Amino acid sequence: MTGPFEPFSADDHRVRMERAAREAEAAGLAGLLIAPGPDMVWLTGYTPPAATERLTLLALVPGREPVLVVPTLEAPDAAKAAGAPALTLRDWTDGTDPYAVASLGLDLSGRYAVSDNTWALHLLGMRRALPDSSHVALSEALPMLRAVKDAVELERMAAAGAAADAAFAGIRQVRFAGRREEEIAADLAGLLRGFGHEQVDFTVVGSGPNGANPHHEAGERVVEEGDMVVLDFGGLMHGYGSDISRTVHVGEPTDEEHRVHETVREAQEAGFRAVRPGAACQDVDPAARAVIAEAGYGEFFIHRTGHGIGVTTHEPPYMIEGERQPLVPGMCFSVEPGIYLPGRFGVRIEDIVTVTEGGGRRLNDAPREIVTVG
Amino acid sequence: MTGPFEPFSADDHRVRMERAAREAEAAGLAGLLIAPGPDMVWLTGYTPPAATERLTLLALVPGREPVLVVPTLEAPDAAKAAGAPALTLRDWTDGTDPYAVASLGLDLSGRYAVSDNTWALHLLGMRRALPDSSHVALSEALPMLRAVKDAVELERMAAAGAAADAAFAGIRQVRFAGRREEEIAADLAGLLRGFGHEQVDFTVVGSGPNGANPHHEAGERVVEEGDMVVLDFGGLMHGYGSDISRTVHVGEPTDEEHRVHETVREAQEAGFRAVRPGAACQDVDPAARAVIAEAGYGEFFIHRTGHGIGVTTHEPPYMIEGERQPLVPGMCFSVEPGIYLPGRFGVRIEDIVTVTEGGGRRLNDAPREIVTVG
Repeated sequence: MTGPFEPFSADDHRVRMERAAREAEAAGLAGLLIAPGPDMVWLTGYTPPAATERLTLLALVPGREPVLVVPTLEAPDAAKAAGAPALTLRDWTDGTDPYAVASLGLDLSGRYAVSDNTWALHLLGMRRALPDSSHVALSEALPMLRAVKDAVELERMAAAGAAADAAFAGIRQVRFAGRREEEIAADLAGLLRGFGHEQVDFTVVGSGPNGANPHHEAGERVVEEGDMVVLDFGGLMHGYGSDISRTVHVGEPTDEEHRVHETVREAQEAGFRAVRPGAACQDVDPAARAVIAEAGYGEFFIHRTGHGIGVTTHEPPYMIEGERQPLVPGMCFSVEPGIYLPGRFGVRIEDIVTVTEGGGRRLNDAPREIVTVG
Repeated sequence: MTGPFEPFSADDHRVRMERAAREAEAAGLAGLLIAPGPDMVWLTGYTPPAATERLTLLALVPGREPVLVVPTLEAPDAAKAAGAPALTLRDWTDGTDPYAVASLGLDLSGRYAVSDNTWALHLLGMRRALPDSSHVALSEALPMLRAVKDAVELERMAAAGAAADAAFAGIRQVRFAGRREEEIAADLAGLLRGFGHEQVDFTVVGSGPNGANPHHEAGERVVEEGDMVVLDFGGLMHGYGSDISRTVHVGEPTDEEHRVHETVREAQEAGFRAVRPGAACQDVDPAARAVIAEAGYGEFFIHRTGHGIGVTTHEPPYMIEGERQPLVPGMCFSVEPGIYLPGRFGVRIEDIVTVTEGGGRRLNDAPREIVTVG
């Protein structure tokens, strides 16, 4: 594992905000309205205590210094954010209209992209303040704004991936049989933290029939000898995401279990090999899906093949039919086909892959062959 | 402490959903659109794994059975929610348009209230699917939907308040001087969990000058002999909120510290006494504020006097000038005046108060006189 990393500087954030404003202009937008969340963290380094009914909003308008509107009470914290020197802070006090404050200097009839997770309350407030303005979701207007990672970001992504690999190496050593899924999930969370994650986002332990529900988390079921167990875990380290899935077996797998696992492994490999600059996001999914369909399991692969990852563990671009976005060096996303046999078991194998000039590069390196646990 | 409590039943949720639809109709709305979060929990008992770019939405339309739209992958979990028997589940699969699914049967040009925390992405998606529909924030259209608690809810609120009181009794026993704020905050979190909270929302420890920033959380500052320390902590227990503030002193307070503390205590008492059915929310704030102004500290009381609490620790109604909503028996909210002397110290005293026929009833009972810690 590498790191620790230098914190991002005001200049890093200035560059990102300038690029975002430039891309907004190129897309014919009057600007960007960014609520607390991953976009705000990436642009400004600022995370308010919580996203609440009190308006905190970053307004990026081409040709103007960025303005961060915050409740007066939170202004001292906002002033400490890494990106604060690169923007103007404007505060509002209880009893005044924050939307009027946030609208100052905005184009009355402009079209703005708003961060996806902006509260409806705040979007409707901005619309009331500027009735002739219109809005589009940021992920629709500029879906690739955060998608291409620079060298500094890729180092962090690689470190997070290596930590997830280390957590998988660790979980292979623990006892599975006779323990509840949620106990193993707690082990996974501890391992991720132990290997440097500051935030654990998910720790899926899907044993036996629970593995056939791709969104099962971890429950009270006691893992038994003979179970297949889907493990899918990740979170944030140095602000950047990890996400890995491996499927392990308690004791020796049957021929069928082995065949299903091999099919998913080959599908994951095929998806990975479809990654190269100039291919489209939608090319990755059918490459993986074809392997599963040919093996006769097509109807049991019931989700898309992947999703982007960065300052969140789940973001554009999506590896799904219809996503024509070309793959660009620096993009990072999951390749995670699976087969889910209802009432029986599931298998999923997932790596984070980044696009390089020469093709895909995996940021996870844990063994993809079926692994036996005790 | 009382409890454990019976889980809410499908009938409890049916009654809430029917009431919400009725109130929507009475307000001239075509219905309610509710995203994952506290409104959805209260109405249906359902909490999806996370609020994401994948649409999960409850549509409540007068005269129709409620419809909960979920991603196919999450349908098995949604079917287990307490309120599931009282609604129709409708799922959508990756690659289809979830907004078209959610719009089925909705009035093409209806006006809908949307839960405040609905993602802009989803509100804009619903607007695209029904371009002639319009939207208003739920807290604006039906601000009092969850405000009046029934007897079962009030029992839980009282239990959460008693647990917060117990946590305050516990924190008085720990060492303050020579320890970092964040260590004391960790003690508070442990106490809240120990006394039954399943979720800790905030543990403010504002020592010395940090106490003068009402939104300071807890940092690396080491508490010293002679410090005033603002403590403000709470979370959820059995799904209902606690929120209490007390200000303690490390060693003996000076005359001035004592006077400021007494002023806030009297202001809190005056705010509490202003609580009675038929008074308005906006009557509570000036009652507390007048005491502080008369003592010459008016300019140092820089926030509203209170906020509602229920399945969240922060919700309507707000105790602020301009909020004409009458106080109704069963409402629960904080009364929390404060004085903040920049660079020096702060004092805040807060109880949760519920409205009864006979006036206010405090759900916190920890001593409000200045308490000395070691």
